[in-house]
Amino acid sequence: MSYNTFGRVFRFTTWGESHGPALGVVIDGCPPGITLSEGDIQPWLDKRRPGTSRFTTQRREPDAVRILSGVFEGRTTGTPISLMIDNVDQRSKDYSNVALAYRPGHADYAYDAKYGFRDHRGGGRSSARETAARVAAGAVARLVIPEVTITGWVEAIGGDVATGFDAGQIDQNPFFAADANAAARWETLVDGARKSGSSLGAVVACEATGVPAGWGAPLYAKLDSELAAAAMSINAVKGVEIGDGFAAAALSGEANADPMRPGAAGPEFLANHAGGIAGGISTGQPVRLRVAFKPTSSILTPVETITREGDATEIATKGRHDPCVGIRGVPVVEAMMALVLADQKLLHRAQCG
Amino acid sequence: MSYNTFGRVFRFTTWGESHGPALGVVIDGCPPGITLSEGDIQPWLDKRRPGTSRFTTQRREPDAVRILSGVFEGRTTGTPISLMIDNVDQRSKDYSNVALAYRPGHADYAYDAKYGFRDHRGGGRSSARETAARVAAGAVARLVIPEVTITGWVEAIGGDVATGFDAGQIDQNPFFAADANAAARWETLVDGARKSGSSLGAVVACEATGVPAGWGAPLYAKLDSELAAAAMSINAVKGVEIGDGFAAAALSGEANADPMRPGAAGPEFLANHAGGIAGGISTGQPVRLRVAFKPTSSILTPVETITREGDATEIATKGRHDPCVGIRGVPVVEAMMALVLADQKLLHRAQCG
Amino acid sequence: MSYNTFGRVFRFTTWGESHGPALGVVIDGCPPGITLSEGDIQPWLDKRRPGTSRFTTQRREPDAVRILSGVFEGRTTGTPISLMIDNVDQRSKDYSNVALAYRPGHADYAYDAKYGFRDHRGGGRSSARETAARVAAGAVARLVIPEVTITGWVEAIGGDVATGFDAGQIDQNPFFAADANAAARWETLVDGARKSGSSLGAVVACEATGVPAGWGAPLYAKLDSELAAAAMSINAVKGVEIGDGFAAAALSGEANADPMRPGAAGPEFLANHAGGIAGGISTGQPVRLRVAFKPTSSILTPVETITREGDATEIATKGRHDPCVGIRGVPVVEAMMALVLADQKLLHRAQCG
Amino acid sequence: MSYNTFGRVFRFTTWGESHGPALGVVIDGCPPGITLSEGDIQPWLDKRRPGTSRFTTQRREPDAVRILSGVFEGRTTGTPISLMIDNVDQRSKDYSNVALAYRPGHADYAYDAKYGFRDHRGGGRSSARETAARVAAGAVARLVIPEVTITGWVEAIGGDVATGFDAGQIDQNPFFAADANAAARWETLVDGARKSGSSLGAVVACEATGVPAGWGAPLYAKLDSELAAAAMSINAVKGVEIGDGFAAAALSGEANADPMRPGAAGPEFLANHAGGIAGGISTGQPVRLRVAFKPTSSILTPVETITREGDATEIATKGRHDPCVGIRGVPVVEAMMALVLADQKLLHRAQCG
Repeated sequence: MSYNTFGRVFRFTTWGESHGPALGVVIDGCPPGITLSEGDIQPWLDKRRPGTSRFTTQRREPDAVRILSGVFEGRTTGTPISLMIDNVDQRSKDYSNVALAYRPGHADYAYDAKYGFRDHRGGGRSSARETAARVAAGAVARLVIPEVTITGWVEAIGGDVATGFDAGQIDQNPFFAADANAAARWETLVDGARKSGSSLGAVVACEATGVPAGWGAPLYAKLDSELAAAAMSINAVKGVEIGDGFAAAALSGEANADPMRPGAAGPEFLANHAGGIAGGISTGQPVRLRVAFKPTSSILTPVETITREGDATEIATKGRHDPCVGIRGVPVVEAMMALVLADQKLLHRAQCG
Repeated sequence: MSYNTFGRVFRFTTWGESHGPALGVVIDGCPPGITLSEGDIQPWLDKRRPGTSRFTTQRREPDAVRILSGVFEGRTTGTPISLMIDNVDQRSKDYSNVALAYRPGHADYAYDAKYGFRDHRGGGRSSARETAARVAAGAVARLVIPEVTITGWVEAIGGDVATGFDAGQIDQNPFFAADANAAARWETLVDGARKSGSSLGAVVACEATGVPAGWGAPLYAKLDSELAAAAMSINAVKGVEIGDGFAAAALSGEANADPMRPGAAGPEFLANHAGGIAGGISTGQPVRLRVAFKPTSSILTPVETITREGDATEIATKGRHDPCVGIRGVPVVEAMMALVLADQKLLHRAQCG
Repeated sequence: MSYNTFGRVFRFTTWGESHGPALGVVIDGCPPGITLSEGDIQPWLDKRRPGTSRFTTQRREPDAVRILSGVFEGRTTGTPISLMIDNVDQRSKDYSNVALAYRPGHADYAYDAKYGFRDHRGGGRSSARETAARVAAGAVARLVIPEVTITGWVEAIGGDVATGFDAGQIDQNPFFAADANAAARWETLVDGARKSGSSLGAVVACEATGVPAGWGAPLYAKLDSELAAAAMSINAVKGVEIGDGFAAAALSGEANADPMRPGAAGPEFLANHAGGIAGGISTGQPVRLRVAFKPTSSILTPVETITREGDATEIATKGRHDPCVGIRGVPVVEAMMALVLADQKLLHRAQCG
Repeated sequence: MSYNTFGRVFRFTTWGESHGPALGVVIDGCPPGITLSEGDIQPWLDKRRPGTSRFTTQRREPDAVRILSGVFEGRTTGTPISLMIDNVDQRSKDYSNVALAYRPGHADYAYDAKYGFRDHRGGGRSSARETAARVAAGAVARLVIPEVTITGWVEAIGGDVATGFDAGQIDQNPFFAADANAAARWETLVDGARKSGSSLGAVVACEATGVPAGWGAPLYAKLDSELAAAAMSINAVKGVEIGDGFAAAALSGEANADPMRPGAAGPEFLANHAGGIAGGISTGQPVRLRVAFKPTSSILTPVETITREGDATEIATKGRHDPCVGIRGVPVVEAMMALVLADQKLLHRAQCG
């Protein structure tokens, strides 16, 4: 029944605002005896860190993580792991107009409607900066599931879909594109959006290999249900697909079947329309997730809106924003997938030994 | 941390298998004093009931619900509401081959991998029959949110998308189509699939009007996150969208904005790309959800598979199946939306009074 | 965040009122593959069943349990286990005056204050009849922890404390006394209370042997904390002790120590003041719990009270009541201990493998 | 399903070890708009702070709290409140022998049995130092329930029971005694224990006035059940009573009744044996809790024990310990009561409006 906690056995709770002194996460339920140091977490934070290319926000944050509890002599103790990241580059003046009027597409109005009051600085709690805490937690989750490899990439930006797939390309360009041609096109596309004060949406794909058959807890903790909740909890996400997703809705039963046959190391599947999940339980095939990010709501183009007092006005969101939040969404989607899988591994072990 | 429970304050737990004596749901956390009788629940079950047209399974189940607790003198008491539906038309012989081999696309293999053992009769726990319990619970949820109206319909079958929208049509055809022309086309389409032993996927849309601004609990109980989990927990669902969903990923920030202006009764929005949710909180606009159902996995066409012992075989799923499970998915999606909204209403009240 | 659910991994949800058609429990998270039939549950219900001696209520309930789901071919499937017990001997007329005035010591006034409304028949949901559902769930829990033996007994009635302890006596008398002399004295004592329309409190002790070291989840799911919550959730319970309990508060550190020495099969403890739990985790010693039951609030002696309208009146609770609810509390305390231990076993397995 | 989280709506998660860099708590679900600064929390921490008299441990910790999130412009925002307290006076050398052998009565052996490994410095996570985080959270909880006044005091030390009660005395002596004579006696008693390297148990009482009728969520979140869990989760607590507790078990029904009569401002009760709770729900009377603390397990007197390798040895726990942990238990019991009541207030509001 938590608001800011996710997970069932391997649980994490995040805290912090965009312009507060720090943000952090407390991980509870982590198995003991796992080797863990800041060095295991920092690389994933670096991947998500802002300011690494001109295609992301220019806010400069080192995002240096500290482990405050739960680790002794380099190993997890089974007690809560508290991770903290200081906010270094808050410039509240950038956001002064946000206090007075609502930015369409942002959480501003909804937060005021809910809480009667909000920390408007940089979006406060609703800022995507919170995802740094998830990425830190996700790094720990990965260590709980060493049998699993998680890979995310950007599949489309602004409707321009990558056609090739070469996993080796993903870390070779600032877009996490698995297609060098797409990366080249997107450079122009994102530059154009950035310069014109616009923004672009994106589709992120993520795959987990090595997930054994049997994870996932039907009916209301199904693996796909958990992944959907996890993905949809990320800022700017508006759609989630498992396997073929919406495309499956246009298929016939024969075309959508994933036939099986005996293989050298257990059953082999002749297709993976299901994205590695049947009845909410992993089948042993790669688990496949696709996530739609809307374009960044913060744009320089003035948009019609109202003030807190309800008067008509216009707002143009200056400041330092990602022209395409989906790009930095890749490590966040990966982290959420790791967190769900670690949780489901332990949950499966609880019931099925 | 529940497996078969959904919700945070208004919670329900379902139980039962396709071919067991009965199935049911226990609702916990329902506010006291609400007028409730079987007559409030039965119409929704009737909407989901099998055998009402040739386009659904021919299993004959009256799906008569009984209230076993939580109601006294016609009103809810605030204690658990236990609802039970007897299974009447189980014919286990229909499913004998399922015990021996895995049906591709079904949960058969995954359940065995997880539990080492399964009730194979009619899919056991993984049968869509469980959704009757959800629909019953959803009927109670609707009474908790009388300010909200929930309407679901089928938007596409087998890739054939309805182009018109007339809410008055939805109950006038066996497909819950909001477009009479589409309904006419789908009759041919679904008949074809049925006769050829094939099946079809579908897209279901669902809209809730009357949701006030402020429901939804960021960050890990966001309204969209809860809806995604709820939708993805339904059998055969592989994709979820809020508002424009994946289409938003192809838009620019200007095109995706939902500008606001002062209105007679509070803020007015000039668009609703966001589907009524910003930052995980309702904005007061209609909440819009789209759900992709894969084609029914049970088809007459033989598919390559393996036996429980791991040997190669083929399986053709005879028996009584929906040629397009998405159709009867409409009342289920509606129910899940009602359940999420009722829960979020109470959750909001808990924190914000 | 449940109201009527207990447990973390092995969870149960009870439903039902004293005078409704039935009561039941849904168990979720039970491991698959456990042999289970009604015959495994019924003996424990029989132990709790009313009307077995003149020292308990004369309500005649067979308390026959039915398994409605979660078991296939005699084994648990890992899906929810729904158990139902019909109410047979409801006589609502017995309780007519309860509708109009509040019985001191009962939940009547508090339920009205909370819910504005209540099912007054036989105490409705607040009736100890609900504990039948716990006992049924506890029978399943015992099967999850075959390594553990749980034994409960009555230690004192109305302040008369048993001085001997012979486990073999417990089932030889209607008081679950482990001391034949005490049983003889209590016969007179309880008969006296019954005949004079009075009632008596009791202290119940319960011990679990075979619990391995390592169960219990600090800090907020400590084994002792869970046992305390479980015990205090039983009707009429007002006190809980682990090990020496309040007596430990009068000891010095030396007197309260449980020294250890090497033993043939691991560490041996020279005392068990701690009741088998240190730091919230089992030590491998017997887990010891003591529970105080207040005297039954339903007494024939008229007591000053008020009506629902707030006017002064007197009430004498006629009907069929236990002169000492603590007696039938024994199987309930045992069941709750089994439920906590089963849950903690699985919870431990989740985190620690 | 949390290990280190407590509460249902108003939830808190603590983290940190005795000798780590810091400890903290994240509070989730706090209502928005509450005035909150460090100044609201610090006085309660000061009350619990070590080293304030010779009757507590001489570890010097300022226990200065910092608010890291969830508060904006002096008011709570409804988002997670992160509180942190630095550890300043860790001297790990004090505890070197603890790494090698188990201290009887401590969590040492149990933690090793559970996790295979532990942070032995100062008891690590099992140290009572964690209760500072609870006290900080409790300070926030008090602000959520301004209608309630919570008062705790020591009722007995080492079996010497206070006979008088004068609330005005509680803050006038280092024992939180409500009886000046008892305080004088306890000075001699605790001094004696301290000087002889022994320790003493204590009984702490706590009362909440102003709790309206209707809080508490039957059946498994009963107010008394929650209080019992909360109290038993505190280090060294071995017993819990609500109202008359174990004494009620020796009473007759008539003697234990709390008769009611009409009063000027609603019902009046003529007694409060029940401790303000009936059927798990508050009645409007003062809520009364009694808690038994065992004597500090850390004593200078050598005790027989085993090493981690299982060999026989003796251990005398040097270092800086409270001769009677029950004394500093008072603010902790108060905090836990505040946390339970705040949670139940919101939980009640969720269901009953």
